[in-house]
Amino acid sequence: MSKQTSIPRGTRDFLPQEMMRRNHIFNIIRSTFEDFGYLPIETPSMENLSTLMGKYGEEGDRLLFKILNSGNFTDGVDMNNPNFNQLALAICEKGLRYDLTVPFARFVVQHQQDIIFPFKRYQIQPVWRADRPQKGRYREFYQCDADVIGSNSLLNEIELIMLIDTVFAKLNMNVCIKINNRKILSGIAQVIDCEDKITDITVAIDKLEKIGLEKVNEELLSKQISTDSIEKLQPILSLKGTNTEKMSQLKEFLKTSETGLKGIEETEFILDHISTDDPFSSSVVELDLTLARGLNYYTGTIFEVKSLEADMGSITGGGRYDNLTGIFGLPNMSGVGISFGIERIYDIWCELNKDKDASFNKNVKYLFVNFGKKEAIYCLKEVKRLRDLGISAELYPDKAKIQKQMKYADSKGIPFVVLAGENEMNTQTFTLKNMETGEQLIVNYGELETRQKI
Amino acid sequence: MSKQTSIPRGTRDFLPQEMMRRNHIFNIIRSTFEDFGYLPIETPSMENLSTLMGKYGEEGDRLLFKILNSGNFTDGVDMNNPNFNQLALAICEKGLRYDLTVPFARFVVQHQQDIIFPFKRYQIQPVWRADRPQKGRYREFYQCDADVIGSNSLLNEIELIMLIDTVFAKLNMNVCIKINNRKILSGIAQVIDCEDKITDITVAIDKLEKIGLEKVNEELLSKQISTDSIEKLQPILSLKGTNTEKMSQLKEFLKTSETGLKGIEETEFILDHISTDDPFSSSVVELDLTLARGLNYYTGTIFEVKSLEADMGSITGGGRYDNLTGIFGLPNMSGVGISFGIERIYDIWCELNKDKDASFNKNVKYLFVNFGKKEAIYCLKEVKRLRDLGISAELYPDKAKIQKQMKYADSKGIPFVVLAGENEMNTQTFTLKNMETGEQLIVNYGELETRQKI
Repeated sequence: MSKQTSIPRGTRDFLPQEMMRRNHIFNIIRSTFEDFGYLPIETPSMENLSTLMGKYGEEGDRLLFKILNSGNFTDGVDMNNPNFNQLALAICEKGLRYDLTVPFARFVVQHQQDIIFPFKRYQIQPVWRADRPQKGRYREFYQCDADVIGSNSLLNEIELIMLIDTVFAKLNMNVCIKINNRKILSGIAQVIDCEDKITDITVAIDKLEKIGLEKVNEELLSKQISTDSIEKLQPILSLKGTNTEKMSQLKEFLKTSETGLKGIEETEFILDHISTDDPFSSSVVELDLTLARGLNYYTGTIFEVKSLEADMGSITGGGRYDNLTGIFGLPNMSGVGISFGIERIYDIWCELNKDKDASFNKNVKYLFVNFGKKEAIYCLKEVKRLRDLGISAELYPDKAKIQKQMKYADSKGIPFVVLAGENEMNTQTFTLKNMETGEQLIVNYGELETRQKI
Repeated sequence: MSKQTSIPRGTRDFLPQEMMRRNHIFNIIRSTFEDFGYLPIETPSMENLSTLMGKYGEEGDRLLFKILNSGNFTDGVDMNNPNFNQLALAICEKGLRYDLTVPFARFVVQHQQDIIFPFKRYQIQPVWRADRPQKGRYREFYQCDADVIGSNSLLNEIELIMLIDTVFAKLNMNVCIKINNRKILSGIAQVIDCEDKITDITVAIDKLEKIGLEKVNEELLSKQISTDSIEKLQPILSLKGTNTEKMSQLKEFLKTSETGLKGIEETEFILDHISTDDPFSSSVVELDLTLARGLNYYTGTIFEVKSLEADMGSITGGGRYDNLTGIFGLPNMSGVGISFGIERIYDIWCELNKDKDASFNKNVKYLFVNFGKKEAIYCLKEVKRLRDLGISAELYPDKAKIQKQMKYADSKGIPFVVLAGENEMNTQTFTLKNMETGEQLIVNYGELETRQKI
């Protein structure tokens, strides 16, 4: 295939069948966001590079798609600069957004006079990353985020967990919602005198199930964690039981760390009030100390969601951040948010055949077969009448073989076909055919919709 | 404001109030497309520049946003090339899509084995143009296109006119749908022996109302059109009356041009079958010979829509093209399509206060006031119960002054506020307040939704 009729690596075309499935999932997430009081916003696809650079680490800067300045971009630029990163910034002022979080932080600071806090917003838009494409990883993909900013109440965390549960229940998917708290992790690091090694510790804990306790301890040692600290960490590595049991062991372990106990208190409040008397329909909620998403970023609760039916990484994540807008000069704005990993959710949802049960096809209900100009015009008025009643219908535009027209109806999942030839025109009727059962019926002109249940 | 907290020129943030209005319009267009049997597709934001270049003329090439290649883009490139256009193509392989039409043509050719013809698709996505920003002209804006490809039946044109009428009727907007036919224009040029001057002729005709017949004739002369041709053109310049009257004068004028008569026949068929016995609710359809959109592109019918209530250019346009996919190696695919100018439609719709009558606000119905932790937890279960019933509700997350919470409800247009303090908790009730009337009422826990009509 020529380059002219292919698309850039890591990008996708979506055909109608895929679009209808994806829209079904998007609509569920969107309407749930709205039911919970989150309001829609959109930000531009391109941001100034000064807004984006330095916000995602060195790796992130490298993965930003940069847009060449318009006109003579070489004007006043030393094009022989051997440092191509510097040169890129000299000839590109704008970049494509990398996520929805940094644009949201910029939005809040820029429009702080026009919004009412606490500000609950949702945003569903594509993002772009110049990552190496591979199975399930794209250079253009959608994110679906909901955040509340300007409130440090833990009720927001509870609401978000309820929202996650509602979305997956509507999608008919069973998930585990894992929660952790950055303050608990800090507390653990304090108690074992290793405050600078939180990441190494959580990475090691994460491998416990796979490689066993002995190997985990070896790994900790290899990361320059003292035997004394490793010794102290052992109760955490053998933490077991229900959420309540784990919490009580943790409380004992963290009794000397004020930060740690604050994390316990927060987590306990959340666990207590999501599970009291109304257990969730489709989710289990589990305390998981190995969760350490974006450590430098989150300051309180951390969420992650995994499917209980499919083997896939995290499909939704989020957490509490105390200083998101600080990078843009608006400090002390605490917020908490989640992001649905729509691409993975879509993959699992299709893989598990969840689409079979969902009524997401907004198919046209009637296809009027075209036997020629005169017949088509006879049909046209009825098509219009049906549409005015809110019933979707289409007329096949060409006089084509009936098999071709039937195949067309079939490929679009249209349940009823309407035929009108000489006979029908003479008697002011239609022949109505049920595509599934093959049943046929004569109905009067102007009465089609009254007989749709043949 | 620092560059970090501003956005690139010609781009926009959309705040919730704007988003809700925009979504209302998008939803009307989307659902109408679907009712008429158009199926959704999406294409990537970035296309290979080889797909885009040369498709929009020289001006279009210049207005394409180009994306800098990732990694060391200077590798193997002569960075001293003084021709910056050539250099741009050496360091950029990809560009942002400029419209939805060329990507659609590429899509049809690339996926021709996977789609059934006639293929009716719609597509609602942003496009980008490096144009000089000005009032109403943006560098990122949405397009809403519907096309049918693989059918040369004029029923498609009729369907599209019906679709346009339906959309504007739902938007409560009065419009004039102007139609013309490229073949009529060719016929006129043939009859007056000026086949190479079609554009000049239509531009001149277009000015008739503004500058008068004499000045139009002067202009034609200045364009090197012979006095003989101008003489012959006079009947066209004095064309008047209803569509039918104009058509009959045109038929006489074009009697020696086979192409012209074909255009007449097509237009007559369309006019006859949209207007017979079911006049349109919100539109008038008018033959307008000055319509000459994208002459090189369209081959048959041409559409354009203007508001009858606001002074604004074309708000929707389209037409028949016989060789759209030919540029990508798939000839003889006739199609016809329209594009809703959503940005202008949005501007007019707001300007004319059409939003006042529309019920597009999906506001949350109940705000539960937060008087403290205990009270909030008392409310939480009721919030969840309402949501499970499909009723949107939210709990104010923080214990804040009641005025602040009321202001929050007001700013979000929430019609009912629910209060629960010591008294209510003791009696297992809520106080329900109607925000519009100020009326208050005591309702039992678990029965809120039964009393929503206070």
